[in-house]
Amino acid sequence: MTIILGLDPGLGTTGWGVIAADGNRLSHIANGRIRTDAAMPLASRLLALDLALQDLILEHRPDAAAVEEVFVNVNPQSTLKLGQARGVVLLGASRSGMEVGEYGARHVKKAVVGVGNASKEQVHAMVSRLLPGIVISGPDAADALAVAITHAHHRASARRLPPGIR
Amino acid sequence: MTIILGLDPGLGTTGWGVIAADGNRLSHIANGRIRTDAAMPLASRLLALDLALQDLILEHRPDAAAVEEVFVNVNPQSTLKLGQARGVVLLGASRSGMEVGEYGARHVKKAVVGVGNASKEQVHAMVSRLLPGIVISGPDAADALAVAITHAHHRASARRLPPGIR
Repeated sequence: MTIILGLDPGLGTTGWGVIAADGNRLSHIANGRIRTDAAMPLASRLLALDLALQDLILEHRPDAAAVEEVFVNVNPQSTLKLGQARGVVLLGASRSGMEVGEYGARHVKKAVVGVGNASKEQVHAMVSRLLPGIVISGPDAADALAVAITHAHHRASARRLPPGIR
Repeated sequence: MTIILGLDPGLGTTGWGVIAADGNRLSHIANGRIRTDAAMPLASRLLALDLALQDLILEHRPDAAAVEEVFVNVNPQSTLKLGQARGVVLLGASRSGMEVGEYGARHVKKAVVGVGNASKEQVHAMVSRLLPGIVISGPDAADALAVAITHAHHRASARRLPPGIR
């Protein structure tokens, strides 16, 4: 069984979701949001994000992390903010020795809903169906769970390939 | 005496410079570049940057860090890369308990050269004059030293103000 931590990074809100994958069988462990205080200096916000992520990793001991590749925002200042948060999140996962998978948004939608142009609502609904009984903490946590599910599928299909062509 | 670490973050190359400031008297301690391998996965590059920065901090034990605020790049993918490196660098400084100063490019040029629209060459030349005998490892290291000098000036002038209006 593999514990997978999905992450949807942001400077203000980082969504996260932890699932267990046993081949194609998935189960929900936990999900939530890490928020940072916009009134704090940038370096302190990044530190708060890093500490909260470390706590999550210590609590759930994931084997792997998965992060969505980024749609670059039209607003360059937003892209920079997102980049800073994303750098901290990728570092945190990497520093804990986890493999870190990155998946494009279309890939995530295709893995979860079956079509690459699915809406956010369809993704959310499908995450709820794939992980029955779940209470999702919000859209960021839904996205984080979706990328965790994508990573689980990716691992499962890699395992079905003959050795040598993974 | 205050040890100041200036940083010019980038995913491929991060310039750094360490100076000692004793009031208005500045002296050079070290400068250089941290490079990461473009062939490695992003998360591993960010981890390599973080580890190299930690080594620097352990070696020089700076009291403060200074980072230039960012000119947002015209290319959003470059902005995202820069943001990811910048997030790791700000986190590294903040995690070590240092105060982290951020200064706009015009502010740095004004502090070092005296005019806000100085060229890169003028900044480089002035850094060499302010820190005599220095060998600068390249343009990124010159920019890192310039922002460290800016932070030193900022601290020195704050100290000259009456208490309560810093």
